[in-house]
Parts: sequence; structure tokens; C-alpha cells
Amino acid sequence: MVDIATRVWNHKWKIDPIVRSLIDTDFYKLLMCQSVFRNHPNTQVTFSLINRSKSIRLAELIDEGELREQLDNIRSLRLTRGESTWLRGNTFYGKRQMFRPDFMEWFENLQLPPYHLEKVDGQFELTFEGSWPEVMLWEIPALATIMELRSRAVLRDMGRFELQVLYARGMTKLWEKVEQLRPIEGLKLADFGTRRRHSYLWQDWCVQAMMEGLGNSFTGTSNCRIAMMREIEAIGTNAHELPMVYAALADSDAALLQSPYDVLSDWQDEHDGNLKIILPDTFGTKGFLDRAPDWLADWTGMRIDSGDPATGAENAINWWKSRGEDPTKKLVIFSDGLDVDKIIELQRQFKGRVRVSFGWGTMMTNDFKGLTTGDALAPFSLVCKAIKANGRPTVKLSDNPNKAMGPSEEIARYKRVFEVGEQEGVEVVV
Amino acid sequence: MVDIATRVWNHKWKIDPIVRSLIDTDFYKLLMCQSVFRNHPNTQVTFSLINRSKSIRLAELIDEGELREQLDNIRSLRLTRGESTWLRGNTFYGKRQMFRPDFMEWFENLQLPPYHLEKVDGQFELTFEGSWPEVMLWEIPALATIMELRSRAVLRDMGRFELQVLYARGMTKLWEKVEQLRPIEGLKLADFGTRRRHSYLWQDWCVQAMMEGLGNSFTGTSNCRIAMMREIEAIGTNAHELPMVYAALADSDAALLQSPYDVLSDWQDEHDGNLKIILPDTFGTKGFLDRAPDWLADWTGMRIDSGDPATGAENAINWWKSRGEDPTKKLVIFSDGLDVDKIIELQRQFKGRVRVSFGWGTMMTNDFKGLTTGDALAPFSLVCKAIKANGRPTVKLSDNPNKAMGPSEEIARYKRVFEVGEQEGVEVVV
Repeated sequence: MVDIATRVWNHKWKIDPIVRSLIDTDFYKLLMCQSVFRNHPNTQVTFSLINRSKSIRLAELIDEGELREQLDNIRSLRLTRGESTWLRGNTFYGKRQMFRPDFMEWFENLQLPPYHLEKVDGQFELTFEGSWPEVMLWEIPALATIMELRSRAVLRDMGRFELQVLYARGMTKLWEKVEQLRPIEGLKLADFGTRRRHSYLWQDWCVQAMMEGLGNSFTGTSNCRIAMMREIEAIGTNAHELPMVYAALADSDAALLQSPYDVLSDWQDEHDGNLKIILPDTFGTKGFLDRAPDWLADWTGMRIDSGDPATGAENAINWWKSRGEDPTKKLVIFSDGLDVDKIIELQRQFKGRVRVSFGWGTMMTNDFKGLTTGDALAPFSLVCKAIKANGRPTVKLSDNPNKAMGPSEEIARYKRVFEVGEQEGVEVVV
Repeated sequence: MVDIATRVWNHKWKIDPIVRSLIDTDFYKLLMCQSVFRNHPNTQVTFSLINRSKSIRLAELIDEGELREQLDNIRSLRLTRGESTWLRGNTFYGKRQMFRPDFMEWFENLQLPPYHLEKVDGQFELTFEGSWPEVMLWEIPALATIMELRSRAVLRDMGRFELQVLYARGMTKLWEKVEQLRPIEGLKLADFGTRRRHSYLWQDWCVQAMMEGLGNSFTGTSNCRIAMMREIEAIGTNAHELPMVYAALADSDAALLQSPYDVLSDWQDEHDGNLKIILPDTFGTKGFLDRAPDWLADWTGMRIDSGDPATGAENAINWWKSRGEDPTKKLVIFSDGLDVDKIIELQRQFKGRVRVSFGWGTMMTNDFKGLTTGDALAPFSLVCKAIKANGRPTVKLSDNPNKAMGPSEEIARYKRVFEVGEQEGVEVVV
């Protein structure tokens, strides 16, 4: 029986909104936002979309009007009462009242700031300018919107059964990964795939499939909305954005060299335990660890997000040992370009030597590789980054020169200040 | 939004009925039924379920009570007004009013006769006794019911996402077949999979997928209900049941030898064109063709349903040539144990030499092979056959001794009368 009212209601919508909630975003954005709201509420930043896969000509695939409608819709969103209740009342990382009342009050009144959109040479120039805590919350919804509009563009001409089989294949593909991961003892894996997901509904499906298929090995999702709806853990700590902006704000080379530690010093004022995770690669891991103050060795773990992950983890273990710490008590989080084979290999290599967990992104929530003609749904590398802070350009080096960003003279200066030598390039797929 | 009324309604059902329509059956059963209704309305027959896959212990998988509920539900069915209108008003094989008014009137008042069900040694003994035109209509619904109850038994303990992925895999598997078949020029293929389908909904899905994926290469379905709902051709001609019962009724060896031709003589009183299809293998193809009267060479085509199909088609071509017929004007229908590779091979081998079409059964509507633990959904060989007519046992020899049935002394007599020599055995999978 058709529910006539529902059918009519559905067809009354002008658009099918992609992002429908301000907490359809990564948990670490909210943690960082609270930190920024406390420590740098007036810093002015610019975030910009960067498509690292130049061959995907987004502005030819996606209609500008449709993109504007989706972005306008996001600007119309407000934190709902239930979402606010969840953020205030839920336990995150074992802690009640993770979010302070003053931050929650600000968030409850937040509307995302305006965006600037232009078509240039087959790509979208999409930027956001304003105060850091507001602008930073655009990153994830902007990425998720463009990813899903691109999916929709590719799917537009497919037949009904062709579409159903496409999703059947996607489901089969994910489930085969679940079946490969299920037998791995002690596996700890979370969904980090919000920003480059195929679509919201697909991410939600993937999360539920992982819950059923992996049980306790699936530790949660970075997506707050899905964590709330599915009653699972919201996962995430901090990102490159903090040291990048802190560094841009530094007034001297000495202050620049100190800035990554200032970030973590501010961070540990607020957080304990599994939230004290070092992200060491923003300006090169080696120098960062060599120069690290002793109090940092006490932190719980390290997230390896660029360069060869096994090398990164070995370096982490050696560093902890050199600082008199027991690596088996420490946590390594792998979160860069993971897929099943790599997860299995890393788990095997580091099991028992260090606590291991995985933040699995694009290849969990957007693996339609090889499933359409011309591979038109293959994942690609789209980011949305802080490119300026108080008028100064930001820089990221990372352990992979192919992921470096910023003006070349600034990159050179950062390399000099942080004493970054020769780096090995790794192809960036997603 | 949940449609509360629908949800409550759905939960009011005592069972989830498998067969919901008297025309959820093969079209050729209705054609044969009309013929039997005219020529042998009072012949008493017994049909019996025969599970050729002894290792599948059906009575241990399927609850007897559930089976009874489904069979009782089938006995409660009557031809609906819309179904009757469709049978009376539709064009079948280019002909209007295929079904005569006296037959339709009888069918509109039909209730299927009682069944007899017992558990014996892990199997069900399921038999139907009564007048031939009534009893014969049990064959397809009985088979489809047991097939689907078996599917349900296997699926009972699966998780929600596990189930969804199982169907995703099944869909992917069928679609890969569609993609292999799509490029084949001149392909003509119909669904013959009602009797051994995974479930009604699955067959209906497969048919729709074939419609979208194969376009005009998909010529229709043997299932009348689905043909009606999807507005496509109902496909089918005649089956072994006719010569088997005609043979059992023969009073002498001479009459026995003549009986297969009597069947076709009765048939051509009613039918023309693409319905004049010879099924030559009931008592051995070679002798049947050697002794065939000249008028039979004029028939449109031949259905190859046992033995090596390529050999069968070569024999048909040679026979037509020997009778002065042009094989390129004739139709060969392959319908035995087909899957994609075989279809492609046969099409390639006979294209241009004879008109070719395929009746694709079990591996179209029930290919879940390799998709569950212990391959618990793998198709198996279940039939429901006329075993007695007016108190006498029936016999089938076919071109594959593994498909022979009947009491051994009767098989010996038939082999003698029909001069069947050495036969090559082919494994019967479905």
C-alpha cells in the first residue's frame, strides 16, 4: 500500500538535501572547534576547497545552481534540540560534559557563514572566510556535498535495475571486506569516511553493516549524526588544521618552531586519556619528535597520517623507547589511505608491540571503484583546508611531499625552520 | 514516515503466503490443461513430488506444519476476475482467445484438489490424486512452495545486513550474467525458472532485471502471473507429461509406440506456428524421429530437454534435412540445465544454421550457489511428475538415463518397444 501522504510530501521538496544536520560532521571538528572557540575565537581564517585530482573536472560534472542550493540549505541548518541534548548529555571517550556550556550555547546559535563560489577552468573555487570557529565547521559538509553531487551526476543516466545492481555490488564489496576483517583478533577499527563518502545514506549503511559484521572490533564512527542515530561511539581527536593555523600566526621563526607544541599544550589543558593523541607529521615527523618536550612522551598515542605507515609506527615505537616509555601501553592510530590489505598487514606487523587502531576512510564509505563504465565513481582526492589565518598563508609539509601545501616560498621557509630534509613521495589516491 | 495501517495489516497475516495466484504457474501447464480438459477430462492421475537430490533432507529443513499451511492456502485460491480477463483477452503467441470459453469457465470455478503429505526418512511424500486437468495444476505451485520454504529455512538465522548482502550478491551475480549475454547478437531468451525459483519476489526481480538489461533479447517468462503484471509475453508449449500419460493409457505395445504421435496430433488440432514445438526425448529422441510421420516435419521447431544439447540440435538439423525441410526456417529451443557459458556456446554453434532460442530456468531464478556457508542455498533437483494414469505407472526415459523414471520392469518394456539402445549418462544438477 502506498502511503499517499508520504509520497506527496517527498515530491514537495525542491531539492533532496545532502547535509541535513550541523552534526553531520566529524567529531574532531567539534573538539577542535571548542578548543579554537576558547583559545582563538577572533582569528580570521580562509578555508578553501582543493581538488587534488585535476582530471575530475567537477564544475563540468556538477551544476553550479544545484551546488548553491545545497550550500544554501546547509546555511539554513541550526543545531536541533535533540542534537544539543546529545552533545551535552552523552559520554564521549568516557567523559561526561565534554562540551562546555559556553561552547554549547554558542553552537546552539550558530549559522554557518557565507560561502564564495566561482567556476574556474572546469573546477569550483569554493572558499569560506570569517572567524575560525565558524568557518572551520564548513570543511566536512562542503566536502560531503561535493562528493555526493558528483555521485548523483554519475548516477543520473542509469536505469533502475542498473542502479540497484550498482548498490548491490557496492554492498557486496564492503561485505567482502568485513569478512576479511572479521577473523582478525584484537582488531579495533572506526569509520573516518564522512568527508569523502559516496552519500550520507551509503555511509550510514556501511556503518550499520560494520556494526553487525564486526561487532566489538568496530569501535565507532567519526560522524556525530550517525553516532547519535546508531548509538555508537563518536571517534576523533585533532587534525593538521590546528598546527597549520597556530604556525601561520607565529611572529618569528622561533615561535614557528614552537607552535606545534603550543597546540598540544592547549589541547592537554582540556583532554585526557585516548584524546591525548599526537599528530606529528604536519611539518615533518622526525624533527617534531626529536625536538618534542618531555611531557609529550606521556601522551597516550600517535596518529600516523602520511608517509609509509609502517615506518611511521616504527619511528613512534623507537621514540617512546628513547623517552623511557613502554610502547605496549601506547596507541598508534593509522588513518591514511587505508584499505583491507593494508589494515591486515599493519595489524599483523604491530600486534603486541603497540596498541593499534585504524581510522578507515574513503575506501570504507566510497569504494565504488571498478563498478561503473569508465570508473566514473572511483574515489578521488578532495580536501578543504585552512589556507590563510589573519591574512597569512598556511603551510603543511607532512611526511609525503605530494601532500604538501602552501606558497612555495613559505614551504621553503618551513622546511628550513623545521629542518626537514629529503622526503620520499607517496602517490595520493584519496 | 511509517504507514501504521500497513504495518499492522502485515502483522495480522498468520503466514506469508508463497503462491498467491492460480496463474503463478507456467504457461504451458495452462495450454496442456486445456488440451487435457478437451481430450482426457476423466483420466485419473497421481502426481508425486520427487527429490532427485537425496542429500537435501527436505523434511528436516522444512516444518511440516508450515508446508501444510502453504498448501492449504493454495487450495483456497481461485482465479481472480483480473486474471480471467487477462487469460481471455490477452494475445498469446500472436493469437487472440487462446483459451476456449468452456475451459475458462471450468478454470474460473476450479479449486485445486486435496493433497496427501507424509514424512518418510527425512523426505516429504507429497502426492496429488484426481482428474488429470485438476491434479496437473498442482505441479508448479507445489514445487515453488517447497523451494521457497527451503530458502526461508536457510535464511532464518541470518542477520539483517547479512541478508541484504546475500541478495546484493545474488543480484550482482545475475547482472553479471546479463552483461555477458547483452552483447550476443540475435539472442532470444525466456525465463523458464518458476518451478525452482528461490522465491516469487526473486523471480519477479530477475525478470525485471532481464527486461531492463537485455531489452528485446528477453522474450518473456513462462510465469503467467509475472507475464501479466509486467506486461510481457507468456512463453511455453508442452511437456513430457502429455506423452507419459498417453503412453500409460495405451492398451498394447503398438498403441504405446504410437502414443507420442497421438499427443502431437491432438496438439496440432488446436495450435499453430511457434506453438507447434516437438519435444522428442520422452522415450528416446532417435527412435522418435526415425519413426515420425511426415506431417511432423512440417512443425515449427523442437525443444531439446535432455542429453547433450549440441548433439540434440545437430540431430534435429539432420532430421529436418532428411525430411526435405530447411533448418534455417526451423526453431530449436534449448531448455535443459542452462547457464550463461552454455547459452553463449550453443548460440555461437547454431547461429545461422537454425533459429535458436533458450528457456533459462534454475540458474536464472535460483543461482545462490556459493553465496552461503555450506552452500545451503545451492539449487537442487526437485520435480513433481505424473507417476500413474488410470492406475497404471508412467514411464519417462529421456536421452539421459539419470533422468529416467518409472518401475524398472516398465522401463525395460518401454526401452524394448521404443528400441532405445545404449544411452550416455549426464549428471543431473537441477
